[in-house]
Amino acid sequence: MAKPDVVVRLADKLAKIDEHWTPYVVGQLNDLYIKVVKVEGEFVWHEHADTDEFFLVISGALTIELEGMDDAELEAGDFFVVPQGVRHRPVAEEECELLLLEPAGTPNTGEVTYSELASPEQWL
Amino acid sequence: MAKPDVVVRLADKLAKIDEHWTPYVVGQLNDLYIKVVKVEGEFVWHEHADTDEFFLVISGALTIELEGMDDAELEAGDFFVVPQGVRHRPVAEEECELLLLEPAGTPNTGEVTYSELASPEQWL
Repeated sequence: MAKPDVVVRLADKLAKIDEHWTPYVVGQLNDLYIKVVKVEGEFVWHEHADTDEFFLVISGALTIELEGMDDAELEAGDFFVVPQGVRHRPVAEEECELLLLEPAGTPNTGEVTYSELASPEQWL
Repeated sequence: MAKPDVVVRLADKLAKIDEHWTPYVVGQLNDLYIKVVKVEGEFVWHEHADTDEFFLVISGALTIELEGMDDAELEAGDFFVVPQGVRHRPVAEEECELLLLEPAGTPNTGEVTYSELASPEQWL
């Protein structure tokens, strides 16, 4: 699917999602994919060797555990950029809605491609 | 200023801004700058020859007039990506708060560098 020239309402896209930790592509900016995801519980520790990763909390709260750094604690309206190569694990005690930005082709579980949480890139 | 490894609260950054149409850099994702801006009234028609541009409405409403395309009408929680090379003019009847994404070095007025609305890139 090519990048659509349409206004995207985040709430409408998120309303279509009923699983956790499965990101969906909802837009594209140059080589970057704009994704939304619902999360709850603990993700897998992983890293992205080639890119930073942007997290914006739309609703709920998110902790991003970071190897060698303090945890990043985010509420709605907060963003954090996980630096390239930094191992991290997102954790949400209750359901949390996120906007993610990362280059097209970035695996959601980084190098941990064998995880059951690994998800292919798919448009919503 | 190097990209900071901190959680950024959009509302706190926006609360520091008291002028319109002056974007401030609040984060970096690879070669992309994450910016916030308050807008009201009409901006200048311009284009970015080398990049798409991402607009997310944080509060208020925004119309993006687009040459050769229907206007994009955005409310809070909506985003739109202006395609590379498409002339556009953002317009807001009342004050509107935006999150912008574009590569570092992208002039806010595109090729219209002589506009009084042209603003240097500055971190907040």
